[in-house]
Amino acid sequence: MAPDAFEAALRAIGDERYHIHHPFHHLLHDGKLCKAQVQAWALNRYYYQASIPAKDASLLARLPTTDLRREWRRRLEDHDGDGSAPGGVERWLALTDGLGLDRDYVVSLRGLLPGTRFAVDAYVRFVRERSVLEAIASSLTEMFSTNIIRLRVAGMLQNYDFVSEATLAYFKPRLTQAPQDVAFALDYVKRHADTAEKQEACLDALRFKCDLLWAQLDALHLAYVEPGLIPPGAFVPA
Amino acid sequence: MAPDAFEAALRAIGDERYHIHHPFHHLLHDGKLCKAQVQAWALNRYYYQASIPAKDASLLARLPTTDLRREWRRRLEDHDGDGSAPGGVERWLALTDGLGLDRDYVVSLRGLLPGTRFAVDAYVRFVRERSVLEAIASSLTEMFSTNIIRLRVAGMLQNYDFVSEATLAYFKPRLTQAPQDVAFALDYVKRHADTAEKQEACLDALRFKCDLLWAQLDALHLAYVEPGLIPPGAFVPA
Repeated sequence: MAPDAFEAALRAIGDERYHIHHPFHHLLHDGKLCKAQVQAWALNRYYYQASIPAKDASLLARLPTTDLRREWRRRLEDHDGDGSAPGGVERWLALTDGLGLDRDYVVSLRGLLPGTRFAVDAYVRFVRERSVLEAIASSLTEMFSTNIIRLRVAGMLQNYDFVSEATLAYFKPRLTQAPQDVAFALDYVKRHADTAEKQEACLDALRFKCDLLWAQLDALHLAYVEPGLIPPGAFVPA
Repeated sequence: MAPDAFEAALRAIGDERYHIHHPFHHLLHDGKLCKAQVQAWALNRYYYQASIPAKDASLLARLPTTDLRREWRRRLEDHDGDGSAPGGVERWLALTDGLGLDRDYVVSLRGLLPGTRFAVDAYVRFVRERSVLEAIASSLTEMFSTNIIRLRVAGMLQNYDFVSEATLAYFKPRLTQAPQDVAFALDYVKRHADTAEKQEACLDALRFKCDLLWAQLDALHLAYVEPGLIPPGAFVPA
């Protein structure tokens, strides 16, 4: 495929598989969830947020050039902060705080759905074990994220009296960080996927990433929406 | 804990978390599923069955003595066969054949639920990465399996005209293999978990294993029972 056709094939995966199409997200944005269900979402997604710098650090450790490492170090700073400005993980905890979840409980991961843990761990291991090209390609779900973030923030602010601009502080910086991440990663992937086999590996990596985001919402939906089947040991709303 | 109290603590985990308590299993045994739902179960569980010898081989490669390796080599033979008698993986394919699933499709894993893949892969990696003691402890769900197998075989034969003794041939040898596996593994774990910390690690390993069996049924339940939310790309019954 020519680079533009390859980019179109990558974008088509989002149309088919990105979790913006999952019913849990519609419920979340449309104000159809109760506070306990939003708590369950924030609690579980904390593990995803907290694992992002771990996967980025494992990729950083394998990148061969100064330019690549500098770009990926910026991602780590976005998520871990710099000691003065809070990073994404800290801002996510502002959300779980604002929802009334005990921070020690959140960070302990005791209430996590096993489905969340297995999906997130699969991502960290994928990035650790696959080629640098596939690892970078798997980050390209950010191509689709500004749209979902805009919908989510607007919908949640409008529909829930238990969230505020302050508790949703995680999302605003992502609207500028994600396009910057994508500009670099998409350019890298288009330049380095120079055979049909490498292009297919990148498409598979992006499908895999969509699947694991989707699976996280599947686990939440089953446990906390319908049929409400909470696995033994997982968070039980008060 | 004294060895007997430790064994009781291990068994108590089964009472709380073993997937015999999952509603999907009740539906399966009680004849409440249609053929397509049983197909989905057999198709997904194939990946678990096919991964068992991979996890056993990775443990075998780390075992330090002839006795231990011989015991674990027997498990590999149970699952992979010896070239004349079929092993467990082959017998599982007799089930998917009998249910009318195309064997190439099953083996390709194309229709797998992402939740199945992530849970099974988590098991293989756990066994590869954790201590030998934790890896062996994670096998102890077999303590609870003869009961579920008896219920499953009796219930399925009675309730479904599309299964037979021949298509359920996987299960019968497990009724003798599993107790043999357990006798060895439980004795090993009781002798080697000689500190509170090691005992707790074994209990955690068994909880982890129960969670991943449970998560596989969660994924099946959400996709094929209620609310019937099949993830993009997964098996869609004809």
